[in-house]
Amino acid sequence: MAKKNAVYAQSGGVTSVINASAYGVLIAAQQADFIDQVYAGYDGINGVLEERLIDLGQEDPDALAALRYTPAGAFGSARRKLQDVEKDRSAFERIIEVFAAHDVQYFFYNGGNDSMDTVNKLSKFAKDHSYPLQVIGIPKTVDNDLPITDCCPGFGSVAKYNAVSMMEGSLDTGSMHRDSTKVFVLETMGRNAGWIAAATGLASRGEEEGPHLILLPEVPFDPKRFLQAVEDTVRRVGFCAVTVSEGARNAEGKVLSEVGGQDAFGHSQLGGAGQYIQEVVKNELKLKTHGAVLDYCQRSGRHLASKVDVIQAIECGKRAVELAGRGGTGRMVTIVREQDAPYQWSLSHTDAANIANQEKKIPSEYIREDGFHITEGFRTYCLPLIQGEDYPPYHEGLPAYTRLKKALVTPKLAPFA
Amino acid sequence: MAKKNAVYAQSGGVTSVINASAYGVLIAAQQADFIDQVYAGYDGINGVLEERLIDLGQEDPDALAALRYTPAGAFGSARRKLQDVEKDRSAFERIIEVFAAHDVQYFFYNGGNDSMDTVNKLSKFAKDHSYPLQVIGIPKTVDNDLPITDCCPGFGSVAKYNAVSMMEGSLDTGSMHRDSTKVFVLETMGRNAGWIAAATGLASRGEEEGPHLILLPEVPFDPKRFLQAVEDTVRRVGFCAVTVSEGARNAEGKVLSEVGGQDAFGHSQLGGAGQYIQEVVKNELKLKTHGAVLDYCQRSGRHLASKVDVIQAIECGKRAVELAGRGGTGRMVTIVREQDAPYQWSLSHTDAANIANQEKKIPSEYIREDGFHITEGFRTYCLPLIQGEDYPPYHEGLPAYTRLKKALVTPKLAPFA
Repeated sequence: MAKKNAVYAQSGGVTSVINASAYGVLIAAQQADFIDQVYAGYDGINGVLEERLIDLGQEDPDALAALRYTPAGAFGSARRKLQDVEKDRSAFERIIEVFAAHDVQYFFYNGGNDSMDTVNKLSKFAKDHSYPLQVIGIPKTVDNDLPITDCCPGFGSVAKYNAVSMMEGSLDTGSMHRDSTKVFVLETMGRNAGWIAAATGLASRGEEEGPHLILLPEVPFDPKRFLQAVEDTVRRVGFCAVTVSEGARNAEGKVLSEVGGQDAFGHSQLGGAGQYIQEVVKNELKLKTHGAVLDYCQRSGRHLASKVDVIQAIECGKRAVELAGRGGTGRMVTIVREQDAPYQWSLSHTDAANIANQEKKIPSEYIREDGFHITEGFRTYCLPLIQGEDYPPYHEGLPAYTRLKKALVTPKLAPFA
Repeated sequence: MAKKNAVYAQSGGVTSVINASAYGVLIAAQQADFIDQVYAGYDGINGVLEERLIDLGQEDPDALAALRYTPAGAFGSARRKLQDVEKDRSAFERIIEVFAAHDVQYFFYNGGNDSMDTVNKLSKFAKDHSYPLQVIGIPKTVDNDLPITDCCPGFGSVAKYNAVSMMEGSLDTGSMHRDSTKVFVLETMGRNAGWIAAATGLASRGEEEGPHLILLPEVPFDPKRFLQAVEDTVRRVGFCAVTVSEGARNAEGKVLSEVGGQDAFGHSQLGGAGQYIQEVVKNELKLKTHGAVLDYCQRSGRHLASKVDVIQAIECGKRAVELAGRGGTGRMVTIVREQDAPYQWSLSHTDAANIANQEKKIPSEYIREDGFHITEGFRTYCLPLIQGEDYPPYHEGLPAYTRLKKALVTPKLAPFA
């Protein structure tokens, strides 16, 4: 079997472990008898369209090995989404053209629901045009919102990071509440699904340990009930730690960052969901608040990753190569839960079309009846995903994250218009 | 020598390692032939005034050992500051009364500049009233703003946490800037001194690694120069990562959170320095921004502590007991730098009056000439302080931070009015 080249590209919001999947692809590809060179799209699909392919053969092997523990997108990621073939035929044609110019038969696309749409369409487009391409999707998203797969690489680590951050922020507030802050608000990522916010609930193992309240996008925000719950908690515990998902919204479906923050003249004010919650508490309950917004630090916080997550990310990368070797295309690797405790999982795969543009929200049985916390069911689901630590090596006090040369393969085509 | 009891109390904003100092006091006290029982003030000085003393003899030894790696104030801290004796004589009298009732000769007060004022005054007050009390201060502050001591326990860890967070946030932004966020803003603690913000500069080892710009309280903020620097950086690197101290201020000395955020009608808006910087960049340069505010998560982020800091915190606690044994009072333990590289340090002590109400700002030789970054001098100063990792043990995916019973010593006095 003649060896062909492979392209790997990252897509969408990065994670702590997306490079671990790249690492998995790499080590599997190095062992595969059907892959010659491995290239990476510079800035994701942009690099493919523009024929800017990073030649991984020119990288220092140690730098590549360090992908295992380096967060964010080492090759650059992209927000760009391919349209339907009818609307954007030139993009699909261009990709095939670039792949043909560089003898590429295998394309590993590491992303979320949008990216799986591309995996599906590109795979079909190549078939329709008789270009021998195998497109395999590798799941990645901190949001954990892909259907079918039990969880998504990236989620376990962001879940752990946020749960630990809530634990620490709550301990801090708890130790100072007597004559300082009474309400601590942690805003987490999660535009439409509240998996990350819910995961902070794992930190709450007793009355004195936050989060006391969790505000999810899945539960319409009711200011009156919320303020009552805050007041009750402060009366009982002395303070209240609140997690709010950036995507939390009111009964009309408006996200909190847009609802609130209107001043007396109706001008919308700055700040996100966390800021809104702080303002509501300050204005209505006259309590001192403090708030954290971890922002990108949470999804790239590789200094505190879940070992389970890291391993799953690597294995998903490896499995993608294996699937390609078996002739698969238009598929995404999935994680299957075999058993809760002790946690056992395996890998499978599904048609990327089943993932494309879907969003898995938190099912109601994972949300406590009052809407303000998680259930034991969620705990059983989520706890295995944050197990184990996997620290990066440090150099002079800071993580020794990789630095790549990113030398490009010599282009062979005219620039993409 | 008859054994007497000791009281330990935490004061002011907590840190990742203040409990490590408590741990140091405890193990030294257990070995000291002059100390009988060790009590801790419940919610700091409040607990002393109210005769709410936690009996450490009733705690599980394992729970006490876990103080070594538990962040925040395990016994509760307090913002309360004692006034001058003339203004607040009853408080001083009450403390002596409580100490006398419980046979307390040793008082270890773990705090910052305000607390050292109390150490100084209380020590003098006891002497003037012929009560045999030895008051020893143990330094603690994330702000690193105490004079005389080379650094403060708490700073090394918050410095490391913020430097790593900036590194990770910058990697994230760098990997997505092509078609997403161009400017990432990290807001750090530091109301008057910029040590924490400056420490993030350690993460910047090359052009592509943030922070590209650091905004310190020590350098008046000039929007025009700043925006020019952001624009230059984005043009050169593709993105710009900015650290801003919460205490950064304009030429009139107004903190940014108060300067900006005024809408067209002059209403002051929400948000702190980070939010202000984001707004300025969005409005003036029309660039997409993102921002993180780590808030309490930074100062209690024990999951990522500096080993040097942990050890210094413990040793300061031990040394306080030793000083008490040698008859010292009104003194604060200090850290002395013996050598930069390899870093060597020792302990000494100073009159608490030398520390009281002072604030050590960043000297100008640590700030780059343009005001936007650190110098090699600062790097030489700060790098030793973030060396080494000291991870807490984990249980089921989360740090096994201690939980104390906090059983109180039976009160002997009437309640404090």
